[in-house]
Amino acid sequence: MKTKFPRPKLIVVGSVALDSIATQHASKKDILGGSASFACAAASFFTAAGMVGIVGRDFPARHTALFRRLGIDLAGLRRVRGKTFRWSGVYERDMNVRRTLATHLNVFESFSPELPPGYVNAPFIFLANISPQLQLRVLEQARRPRFVAADTMDLWIKTERKSLEKVIGKVDMLLINDSEALDLTGCRNAVAAAKRLMNMGPSRIVIKKGEHGSMLFSRKSVFLMPAFPVAEVHDPTGAGDSFAGGLMGKLAGLDGLTESCFRQAILAATVMGSFCVEGFSLDGLKNLSKQDIAKRSSALRAMT
Amino acid sequence: MKTKFPRPKLIVVGSVALDSIATQHASKKDILGGSASFACAAASFFTAAGMVGIVGRDFPARHTALFRRLGIDLAGLRRVRGKTFRWSGVYERDMNVRRTLATHLNVFESFSPELPPGYVNAPFIFLANISPQLQLRVLEQARRPRFVAADTMDLWIKTERKSLEKVIGKVDMLLINDSEALDLTGCRNAVAAAKRLMNMGPSRIVIKKGEHGSMLFSRKSVFLMPAFPVAEVHDPTGAGDSFAGGLMGKLAGLDGLTESCFRQAILAATVMGSFCVEGFSLDGLKNLSKQDIAKRSSALRAMT
Repeated sequence: MKTKFPRPKLIVVGSVALDSIATQHASKKDILGGSASFACAAASFFTAAGMVGIVGRDFPARHTALFRRLGIDLAGLRRVRGKTFRWSGVYERDMNVRRTLATHLNVFESFSPELPPGYVNAPFIFLANISPQLQLRVLEQARRPRFVAADTMDLWIKTERKSLEKVIGKVDMLLINDSEALDLTGCRNAVAAAKRLMNMGPSRIVIKKGEHGSMLFSRKSVFLMPAFPVAEVHDPTGAGDSFAGGLMGKLAGLDGLTESCFRQAILAATVMGSFCVEGFSLDGLKNLSKQDIAKRSSALRAMT
Repeated sequence: MKTKFPRPKLIVVGSVALDSIATQHASKKDILGGSASFACAAASFFTAAGMVGIVGRDFPARHTALFRRLGIDLAGLRRVRGKTFRWSGVYERDMNVRRTLATHLNVFESFSPELPPGYVNAPFIFLANISPQLQLRVLEQARRPRFVAADTMDLWIKTERKSLEKVIGKVDMLLINDSEALDLTGCRNAVAAAKRLMNMGPSRIVIKKGEHGSMLFSRKSVFLMPAFPVAEVHDPTGAGDSFAGGLMGKLAGLDGLTESCFRQAILAATVMGSFCVEGFSLDGLKNLSKQDIAKRSSALRAMT
């Protein structure tokens, strides 16, 4: 797809999906989802972000239009014959419990991400949740990025552990759920798991704990951030991706890697995650103003 | 029991127990436990605390000696014919999951707490986890305390709901676990539950989330505090009581009820809870120095 935007400062590779989701409140069919969609949308409020991914011919033009309206560069989003990746799942009353009903890779089955010329020098790269082999493919094409982060999920720990370990060995920061961190390392608690993961390569580890917030570890420090207490969670899908997108977007926007930058970025991440869960799909993110974000950031700062 | 201590600024009513506990690491039989034991021990580092409770003739003198060494006033601790209250339980590998094996009320069956003369004017009162009827008995005897807080547990929500609601209607602050707050109110999340609970009387609600920290609600503000990340949890028993004791002890020590006092108190509470879980029984608390506490408080402050 063509683009009219400046070179992205942050590139995000990940999934673009049509999700079918049932919560205790509502059911939605074929709504816009995917790790790259949430991460880019969240990042777009802080920096020039570019999306690397793939969709099928059935991908509605209104979604592409939404990405563009958010200022997301789409030079790396391929559109090919076939159907868009689809995921469907059900949340129980306790929204921390999710069952996957179906995953149809569709166009992702034969996808090999290729960075457009303007992307290979991007200083910030976020490898959103997607197969570690595809994450590695992106890294191979990048020229000396300043800071690379990766997210992952339980599926890859089970099915592509070797590739995932390779990814972890090549990135500056890993984002991972608390339960996945324990699974991956065999450790009994987050502190030990984070240490183990840092020994695999990354200088920073972010342990995501959903409604319980997050922990940022470096070799010298720990930073603890509670989640923003939202009045009602409508759909947790994409919260972790929005968190990560907010984090990487803010970091790219600040253009710095000091401890203070990371802490500001974790705050932004927490705020974007909280907006995400207040609606289905990108509904909680897509109409935000910078003022909304600033207001909630101040509120969260006052609570901590 | 006689006392040589100054009038307590904080009185704590609760259980004094001999616990038998099995974790995945170790099993211990008849070790010192009980909500009043943990709460008083934690509070003792910040203020003059007095314990109201009951033990049997089998209660080892070394435990009473430990309380005294910590500076806890024991004028309100009765020792009667019969056996001390006993609780036994097992923790699963995931230490958040606990099964009660047995509860023997013993001397608690016929206990009716009576405040010694020096206690009725205490400005701070903590009704630690114990039957709400006993909590009410203490409140009836207190003369115009400045600040009263209560803790509770799922058992009383199920078996003594009416009395518990009466307690909640009479206290300034309620401490309660996240899952218990949802149970008690029928709300789906902590924010809604805290609002509902404040409508029942208390001006402040503390939602305890174990390893995920705590939330302090007032009608005007929310304060979010992550837990201190301990390297290894040895025994979570008493963590909530130590948290509450640290909170009330610090509040009494500061002798103030401003928002800043409460935030300092929540920090102290979090620190005392974290020391508690590092050992069985009162092992994590009993040999602390003020320096240990100050050091961990600074560390936690730096992480948040």
